[in-house]
Amino acid sequence: MILSQIEAAAERIAGHAVRTPLLNAPLLDRIAGRRVFVKAECLQKTGSFKYRGARSAVSALEPELRKKGVIAFSSGNHAQGVACASAEMGAPAVIVMPSDAPRLKIDNTKAYGAEVILYDRETEDRDAIGAELAETRGLSLIKPFDNEMVIAGQGTTGLEIAQQAAEADVEASSVLVCCGGGGLTSGIALALAGVAPNLKVRPVEPQGFDDVTRSLAVGAPQTNNRMGGSICDAILTPSPGKLTFPILKAHCGPGLIVSDDEALRAMALALRYLKIVLEPGGAVALASALFHDHGTDDIIAVATGGNADAAMIEKALASMDETS
Amino acid sequence: MILSQIEAAAERIAGHAVRTPLLNAPLLDRIAGRRVFVKAECLQKTGSFKYRGARSAVSALEPELRKKGVIAFSSGNHAQGVACASAEMGAPAVIVMPSDAPRLKIDNTKAYGAEVILYDRETEDRDAIGAELAETRGLSLIKPFDNEMVIAGQGTTGLEIAQQAAEADVEASSVLVCCGGGGLTSGIALALAGVAPNLKVRPVEPQGFDDVTRSLAVGAPQTNNRMGGSICDAILTPSPGKLTFPILKAHCGPGLIVSDDEALRAMALALRYLKIVLEPGGAVALASALFHDHGTDDIIAVATGGNADAAMIEKALASMDETS
Repeated sequence: MILSQIEAAAERIAGHAVRTPLLNAPLLDRIAGRRVFVKAECLQKTGSFKYRGARSAVSALEPELRKKGVIAFSSGNHAQGVACASAEMGAPAVIVMPSDAPRLKIDNTKAYGAEVILYDRETEDRDAIGAELAETRGLSLIKPFDNEMVIAGQGTTGLEIAQQAAEADVEASSVLVCCGGGGLTSGIALALAGVAPNLKVRPVEPQGFDDVTRSLAVGAPQTNNRMGGSICDAILTPSPGKLTFPILKAHCGPGLIVSDDEALRAMALALRYLKIVLEPGGAVALASALFHDHGTDDIIAVATGGNADAAMIEKALASMDETS
Repeated sequence: MILSQIEAAAERIAGHAVRTPLLNAPLLDRIAGRRVFVKAECLQKTGSFKYRGARSAVSALEPELRKKGVIAFSSGNHAQGVACASAEMGAPAVIVMPSDAPRLKIDNTKAYGAEVILYDRETEDRDAIGAELAETRGLSLIKPFDNEMVIAGQGTTGLEIAQQAAEADVEASSVLVCCGGGGLTSGIALALAGVAPNLKVRPVEPQGFDDVTRSLAVGAPQTNNRMGGSICDAILTPSPGKLTFPILKAHCGPGLIVSDDEALRAMALALRYLKIVLEPGGAVALASALFHDHGTDDIIAVATGGNADAAMIEKALASMDETS
């Protein structure tokens, strides 16, 4: 993949995706001991960066194919992104979701007008369900990260970060990105390698789901042992993607790992000082920026999603009561 | 006051104040039955629009005066705005706050480096305390709304709304603004009258504190009977300002009134769909946009502040549990 694909995606999504702000709060900087800038993708349409890749991919389809419709597998944020982008462009959307996905994410996906098909993770074969639907209806599959148009769409976040970092006089910095399959992380890394090589991407993952960190350390794709057991549902993936891993390997620094408790405390501090709602999986990069040793350099954290329900927000607020 | 004062303020605060986004959520539009755009000033530095006016006023002082320092009276958001802007510009700041102001707001004001002097609303004379300090130390008083440089700073919000509304293809619309003394409301109204007369400002107030609504209805300044008893602490003022009222009268439509419960529900919906934290006084405009009859036209609501503590956020979330 090349930079011009990201630039082309930026043109296709312009006027549709939100140019999210790069937020900063002086009192949060004090806690971190450095300037922390937060690219607030929770403010993106549908509450996560996933809308960028979805709009990029749906808009790149031939009109004939788009009319037939699209299909996606997702436990939540990709589902909402595809459902919203498809509805905007008049493409029917079928979203195959695990029946234990967060209620808020299932409800929202339906509300965007998508046909939601629930399956049981334990007993049913998601890919078989999807393959049959795709074939009988002629639907185009929009993969969550191993799709060039999706990676290009997510990479538009990187183009904005480069501009906004320059405006904020950030000269050299780590750019921490919450990482699941690596679509966003690889897209941003590719964009920054092209337009702002002073900004170096580092993936951030939840404890126990550090496949990308281990893969980067040994130079070959590694797999997680489990697929559940963290509150960071948005970024639990078995292993880095076939398309994303080579990009990550070429352009990223070492991975970082945070605990669920650190993610909750970062959520609480984001509510308090940045006035934004993050979901746990969208808060791991900020958690590393706040709680890990990164020296005194400026740091940029991408806050990837905000689709937390009331119970999760309350849990985050409670984590602060105990520690502050 | 004239438009060029607002444009001059925009130049002074450029690169310091956040150009906050105009947010929109398709699922929230469905609840409202119209497109609702939210100017998210909760994402402004210090968590409210007050930073704009403070930076505008402090930066407009003669350097000699600035060096001596500034003084402000405020229960919270103006306090934080003045404290932060003064710290950035090397001006000592004394903030006189009522001892019953929200803890979070007192703590933050101190954290920006200001000298905070607490007084008892019942037994002490705020103005006397302030006058003596101002005289002995040569401090410049930054009033919260009856100050041309402050109104000009708040008015920069209106210049941004005009641009962002045009980008979002909003042609004619009401612009609802949470209104206390009217600094922000008059600043936005003046800006829009100059650059986007298709956008008409309407002040929004909490029940029982509708001095501006009544003042506009009768054409002369009216006073509230009480100064406490609403959760909307940020916008409880006794009457419209001497400078602000003539501007409000010249440029605003009729006022609107919302209940505390509507403000709480708007906070909850903002958390859920816009991923932003609002305080009750910062949510009344959105509450009117969502829950009042405004026909099917597009509407713009200014979300003026987000300095809510954990208990208030939990209260807002609980209000949704009961109604949704």
